[in-house]
Amino acid sequence: MRSTMQDAPLLIRDIVRHGQWMYADKQVFTATPTGVVQASFATVAERAQRLAAALTALGVRRDDRVATLMWNNQAHMEAYLAVPSMGAILHTLNVRLFADQLAYIINHAEDRVIIVDASLVPLLARIKDRIPGVAHFIVNGPIDEAPFDVLDYQALVSENEPGDHWPDLEETDAAVMCYTSGTTGDPKGVVYSHRSIWLHSLASTSANSIALSDRDRCLLVVPMFHVAAWGAVYTAFMAGSELIMPQMFLQGEPLLEMMTQLRPTTALGVPTIWNDVLRAAGGRSDVDLSSLRMILAGGAAVPRFMIEAFRERHGVDVLQGWGMTETSPLVAVSMPPAGVSPEHEIDYRVKAGRVMAGVQIRITDEDGAVLAADGVATGEFELRGPWITASYFGVDAPELFRDGWLRTGDIGTLDPHGFMVITDRAKDMIKSGGEWISSMELEATVMGHDGVFEAAVIAVADDRWQERPLCVVVRTPDSTVSAEELRAFIGPSVAKWWVPEHWSFVEAIPKTSVGKFDKRALRRLLAEGQLEVETLG
Amino acid sequence: MRSTMQDAPLLIRDIVRHGQWMYADKQVFTATPTGVVQASFATVAERAQRLAAALTALGVRRDDRVATLMWNNQAHMEAYLAVPSMGAILHTLNVRLFADQLAYIINHAEDRVIIVDASLVPLLARIKDRIPGVAHFIVNGPIDEAPFDVLDYQALVSENEPGDHWPDLEETDAAVMCYTSGTTGDPKGVVYSHRSIWLHSLASTSANSIALSDRDRCLLVVPMFHVAAWGAVYTAFMAGSELIMPQMFLQGEPLLEMMTQLRPTTALGVPTIWNDVLRAAGGRSDVDLSSLRMILAGGAAVPRFMIEAFRERHGVDVLQGWGMTETSPLVAVSMPPAGVSPEHEIDYRVKAGRVMAGVQIRITDEDGAVLAADGVATGEFELRGPWITASYFGVDAPELFRDGWLRTGDIGTLDPHGFMVITDRAKDMIKSGGEWISSMELEATVMGHDGVFEAAVIAVADDRWQERPLCVVVRTPDSTVSAEELRAFIGPSVAKWWVPEHWSFVEAIPKTSVGKFDKRALRRLLAEGQLEVETLG
Repeated sequence: MRSTMQDAPLLIRDIVRHGQWMYADKQVFTATPTGVVQASFATVAERAQRLAAALTALGVRRDDRVATLMWNNQAHMEAYLAVPSMGAILHTLNVRLFADQLAYIINHAEDRVIIVDASLVPLLARIKDRIPGVAHFIVNGPIDEAPFDVLDYQALVSENEPGDHWPDLEETDAAVMCYTSGTTGDPKGVVYSHRSIWLHSLASTSANSIALSDRDRCLLVVPMFHVAAWGAVYTAFMAGSELIMPQMFLQGEPLLEMMTQLRPTTALGVPTIWNDVLRAAGGRSDVDLSSLRMILAGGAAVPRFMIEAFRERHGVDVLQGWGMTETSPLVAVSMPPAGVSPEHEIDYRVKAGRVMAGVQIRITDEDGAVLAADGVATGEFELRGPWITASYFGVDAPELFRDGWLRTGDIGTLDPHGFMVITDRAKDMIKSGGEWISSMELEATVMGHDGVFEAAVIAVADDRWQERPLCVVVRTPDSTVSAEELRAFIGPSVAKWWVPEHWSFVEAIPKTSVGKFDKRALRRLLAEGQLEVETLG
Repeated sequence: MRSTMQDAPLLIRDIVRHGQWMYADKQVFTATPTGVVQASFATVAERAQRLAAALTALGVRRDDRVATLMWNNQAHMEAYLAVPSMGAILHTLNVRLFADQLAYIINHAEDRVIIVDASLVPLLARIKDRIPGVAHFIVNGPIDEAPFDVLDYQALVSENEPGDHWPDLEETDAAVMCYTSGTTGDPKGVVYSHRSIWLHSLASTSANSIALSDRDRCLLVVPMFHVAAWGAVYTAFMAGSELIMPQMFLQGEPLLEMMTQLRPTTALGVPTIWNDVLRAAGGRSDVDLSSLRMILAGGAAVPRFMIEAFRERHGVDVLQGWGMTETSPLVAVSMPPAGVSPEHEIDYRVKAGRVMAGVQIRITDEDGAVLAADGVATGEFELRGPWITASYFGVDAPELFRDGWLRTGDIGTLDPHGFMVITDRAKDMIKSGGEWISSMELEATVMGHDGVFEAAVIAVADDRWQERPLCVVVRTPDSTVSAEELRAFIGPSVAKWWVPEHWSFVEAIPKTSVGKFDKRALRRLLAEGQLEVETLG
């Protein structure tokens, strides 16, 4: 039997209308080389209407792909609101990709229009001849001389009229497209629907998740080209949370400056960024982070020392969020359960998190058998839910799905209270003497040493044990910590046979385009003999 | 274009599974004549599985209606979880209805099974012969002698096996059925879907609405037969909020006892209940309500004096929620906007509330033209959204809908920040000299007097002015306040021509089955000459 409820679809258009009305006065702050500029939600939404009119005049129709090659800024936000609401599909391009990958993705997605920040036009110029399907390039910001025909973003927005003319759409229609960073094979595209984004946004306002509300001002460090900035642009507009957009100023010092000046209540970004912020704040007495109710860290495991350091030095709680491009991304948040004593909170904050309402999760063994959620059984996480992908755009990848569940490639345990603990990426685990060593756990332990800025662990082939761990370390500026000292430091914290005998000290660990340790690059450096490895006896 | 997202429906089954796993240890407390009994979410969910097995064995199939005639208690909660999850439809019957209405509703809904609290068997016995379609009566609790053939709830649950066998359903399938209290004409049924309940639950966990979370323990005074207890049973199970179920102990004293002993963080109920609690707490020095982060009051306007009294005497914030049976019910919550100074918060708390994400709202004039949301233009509220009804079960009522929007029958304004102010029910407004007088506003003003316990205002016919207000007053126990004194008291607060010249002092104001002032009954008493009316010169 059908209910008597209205058939009212979940559309991004209605997120836009809600924020535009209820939170008209809320502000979006954008960092620029000459200072912060700001605009109200009402202005941003009105400019989104003008942008939609401009794109329509340029011939953009239902389902056409409109790509962005942009930093986190107000114009990018306007594209976020306008493009899906007009029935087209927003495709966010990662500004840190190599030219080859960028050209591949643009052609694969069949982008018709690209909106590009002025500072990124040179990147596009390198591939301009290889993306013939793109009919229009729209540049945000002044450029001296265009290397090819471009339209001016600000002029287009000014010349077109606003008006709430958003069409009626199906909630299952495609809305936003995002390619995975693709550490193996070609990048693969995930296409979010209006429904998935709407539900993910509402779920992100839930008191058990990250609880964004009109009392928040959110420093959005996670790039808008990376899983739609964890959905936070849409969540913020739905919930009336103000946004601070740092553009390309993503180093510790400028971020600290923004945190001190603009007083965000929340800040979202990958752990490497927060490590950088911690370091930048280290020597200063004028750092006041008391406006922050939380830092949300995700994209990689957050080491315990980082959570402790933010709490002890700055009085700030760090929360982990876990997810992937394929999951919109929020699946779990490491909010400690109610009633846990303050000294035990950290034991929950170091976990990947408790699974949110709306996502179903299970762990399976190598044969696909479902394992117990007992905190002990270890297997691959598999996911179901309305904001989890069922496939990739235009590519068959049946090995990544099982019976309608997404296989995450992450290995770990589930406990009786729904907390995920991730041991490792399946492909990063180290098989030593027939047993598994978690590279992630080793990294977190080594990074707990004061003299270590970053550490990444990969496998090296071993005649006797099959594989053994190699720990690649970046020292803090004044540190002279040695391999022997680090071995002694981690000794009490991990199993004896986990302790690496291979160590390498480097200036920097290569990162992927979204800021994670690039272990593929590390393995290549090792294979090419470019890592100086010290082996302890 | 379709997205790549999974086709994963929003089902009550998954709310049940989520709470059962993530919040297994959370407790449901039920008041009984011999003390409080409690059970964990895990136990409640397992018993719901057993109940579903029992109902299946009794022949209950997809879409069959299983009715409940029950107070707020654990068994009722088990039915809430089991019946929709097994694909049947839960129909909550109002225990305060007259026998005629009850028989009408049971037959109209085609109920096949009724689960009834032992204390309510006599009520059912009176109509047993008039509801031939009901195949089984299941009694919760011991009874001395059954007046007709009944099954025992506890035995059924014990005899059947648990097991997570919930079927796959469509999210648009009917889940729960609720009839309006029907102050005009026959009661009309609204049928909620799995989708509407799932979305309403998630929206109720949102930080901008009532933000239920695993840090909450919720005293559920609003009856589970009234708009599914404002959806709170499902919200609580989704969010891990504990529940306190008061059964029939709904007077000020026992509620105060529960609040003191069980320390809820939130409490949900109609304003008349909270007025009673305030009165009961008035003379006592041992009342400690510091566990409450809020009282959510809804179903009728909350007078300013009540909000002030809870804050000043008990340090508790009162929040209004606005909605109707037709709207699941939450549409708006009177959370003050961020940044409002403490002394101005009350100005927002007295409004019906700010509209939640997910609901679209507009006001229209008598011709259906949409009016401005400027805080001035006054019209009828109309609503759209996935948890708003589009029709009534088996009844045509086209006059209550307009272009796919629900007409609420409530009159008021919308402001530029999305706050609703309700002037009156359309049918309760008083037309005097061609201008409208708000009965609700007069009532709230009169109830601000210390000597007044309750006040209801209705229209009386007037030769000169067409209609004039009559104010019906219940004095507080020791009060001797007079009509003259009340006239003088409200003089400074309302327009001169609003001040009633007609007054009536009574022992009690008749209430509807859900605890609202029954103005239809008051008008009947007036017409029958049973109200003693004093008219001031």
